[in-house]
Amino acid sequence: MSPADRSLTRIVGVADLAAILTEVGLDTFLDQLIGRLATAFAAHDAETVETEIRRGFTYGKPAFGLVEWMPAHEVGRVVAIKTVGYHPDNPVQHGLASVLATTSVYETETGRLAAVVEGTVLTALRTGAASAVATDVLARTGDCLLGIVGAGAQAVTQAHAISRIRPVTRILAVDRDPEVAASLPHRLAFLDIPVEVVDPGELPDVLAEVDVLCTCTSVGIGEGPVVEDGPHRPWLHVNAVGSDFPGKVELPEALLARSIVCPDVLEQCIVEGEAQRLRVEDLGPDLAGLVRHRDRYEAWRSRPTVFDSTGWSLEDLVASELVLEHADRLGLGVLCDLQVRSDDPYDPYRLLR
Amino acid sequence: MSPADRSLTRIVGVADLAAILTEVGLDTFLDQLIGRLATAFAAHDAETVETEIRRGFTYGKPAFGLVEWMPAHEVGRVVAIKTVGYHPDNPVQHGLASVLATTSVYETETGRLAAVVEGTVLTALRTGAASAVATDVLARTGDCLLGIVGAGAQAVTQAHAISRIRPVTRILAVDRDPEVAASLPHRLAFLDIPVEVVDPGELPDVLAEVDVLCTCTSVGIGEGPVVEDGPHRPWLHVNAVGSDFPGKVELPEALLARSIVCPDVLEQCIVEGEAQRLRVEDLGPDLAGLVRHRDRYEAWRSRPTVFDSTGWSLEDLVASELVLEHADRLGLGVLCDLQVRSDDPYDPYRLLR
Repeated sequence: MSPADRSLTRIVGVADLAAILTEVGLDTFLDQLIGRLATAFAAHDAETVETEIRRGFTYGKPAFGLVEWMPAHEVGRVVAIKTVGYHPDNPVQHGLASVLATTSVYETETGRLAAVVEGTVLTALRTGAASAVATDVLARTGDCLLGIVGAGAQAVTQAHAISRIRPVTRILAVDRDPEVAASLPHRLAFLDIPVEVVDPGELPDVLAEVDVLCTCTSVGIGEGPVVEDGPHRPWLHVNAVGSDFPGKVELPEALLARSIVCPDVLEQCIVEGEAQRLRVEDLGPDLAGLVRHRDRYEAWRSRPTVFDSTGWSLEDLVASELVLEHADRLGLGVLCDLQVRSDDPYDPYRLLR
Repeated sequence: MSPADRSLTRIVGVADLAAILTEVGLDTFLDQLIGRLATAFAAHDAETVETEIRRGFTYGKPAFGLVEWMPAHEVGRVVAIKTVGYHPDNPVQHGLASVLATTSVYETETGRLAAVVEGTVLTALRTGAASAVATDVLARTGDCLLGIVGAGAQAVTQAHAISRIRPVTRILAVDRDPEVAASLPHRLAFLDIPVEVVDPGELPDVLAEVDVLCTCTSVGIGEGPVVEDGPHRPWLHVNAVGSDFPGKVELPEALLARSIVCPDVLEQCIVEGEAQRLRVEDLGPDLAGLVRHRDRYEAWRSRPTVFDSTGWSLEDLVASELVLEHADRLGLGVLCDLQVRSDDPYDPYRLLR
């Protein structure tokens, strides 16, 4: 970026993100993101990266939904704030994704808004990548039969990301909406992995068979769990992605009780994750601890484990920085004169003269 | 906005804001903002507008600064989140305003980001307008001698806004930086009101003479107050604008103790406003209560009063909505394809096909 542009805000929208993903390649981008996240998790300490737990407004009017903010601060460099809306009726009512997000990146040298980055696709990507990082530590190595419960947008990046760190041989997918379930094989065609759509009634068989399970539903508050307890592989690893609100859970308590449950962010998970039904002292290490000391946990690969993924603002900071590096390199993004700069910073009306 | 544009994000940057202020006229715009704020304050209840107190990251590296977020939710319509950076070294080090802000506006029907609005000039305008609303309730009517302590960007909008609700006959201005002080008369020339720059040593005389005082300094944490206690008019009204952080205060405790102190947002002021040194039970009504029951407080116009202005997220919501109405009417703003929409909301990779 030239010095003259340094006071402008870079808007990296849908077309720019598409250009970046096309140029870099979706597999390579996801691999980079998985690698960056693993590094950031392992290196994380609160002195160098401060993160706030998610807060937001939840409402029932005009429809059920919420808008939340997820701030992270890389000390000496940037603040990244992702804002995310969750409106489960969006796909059916408005042809929009249920999760809509953008990340704003502020330089802490001046506080100026350096960039605004599309966050919807990036949220799906980073959520998949975080599951891949946890799965890589906790799941058995070797061929992987993958189960997916909830065949929406998150299912695509969960399956893609898991396939980058384990040889996924087959995918079994369940959704309560038959149309959504039926379309998943087409959306996952690029993976070249057989995808079998399974009737919700056969979910116990899926649980019994798979090595890794990703639950990524829009289950309603108080309507979970979406999986009944039952027999499963002794080494079952679950990435529980859909639980992100008080009362919104996907897994049966008995399964949680016999698994090692690792929260992404402890304070957040005990409020809105699967861990909201567990005692803190019964939880495993958090994501940062898990990755930092991954050697310690190798034995857990033969035991049932759960990654309680509520979403960490650090993930959004890392994802947006990766996008911005590519945008810089490729000269992508629209530069907007969004914030006043002036030869007289003491005169707010200077812009009129 | 046409239906096809409804999934785009409207970016209202510096040039657009300048065009709006030019077309509407600065006086008229400020009058509209003062009117809208007064209405919003009087009508405010937590059922229809939820506001969060300001939170943020504060840091000492690479320089002292902070980035904060101020969310507000107008139930059934929008969430507006202003993010604001405060970096007091900006004017001298970077030629940027010390306060840099943008407001993001989300439609709660879908959670989509409907607009991003320049917030630096708007913050100065709404802070001035809020002082005008409080001053209009609490200050003696008739000719007004106005004092300004801190002659930076906020001084311009404080003076302008007060002049819209009282006949300001003269302005006395003080700043510890002689250059900043000396330039204020030029920046206020558009008001056609005599502006006299006063040496900081003569601040007691200013306090003694003025009817209304606006303190709007960048006083350091622990370095206040900026005004020493002393004689003043029995009806002195002070708008204390600079106090917005724990330990950052402008007024002497004795003056606060003998004044009726009205916080803009109680929970925020007791943490970071002038009120941080007072007991809650010693405070006057908050801004909403003050405006709602303005008739009750007419007698206070002959007593010393302080408006403790820390900044309310509701003000930013109202200001950004006013700008967006004008932008809509005038067809201003750049429409950006910032958030993914798709004929398949279940496929995050759709943008690549």
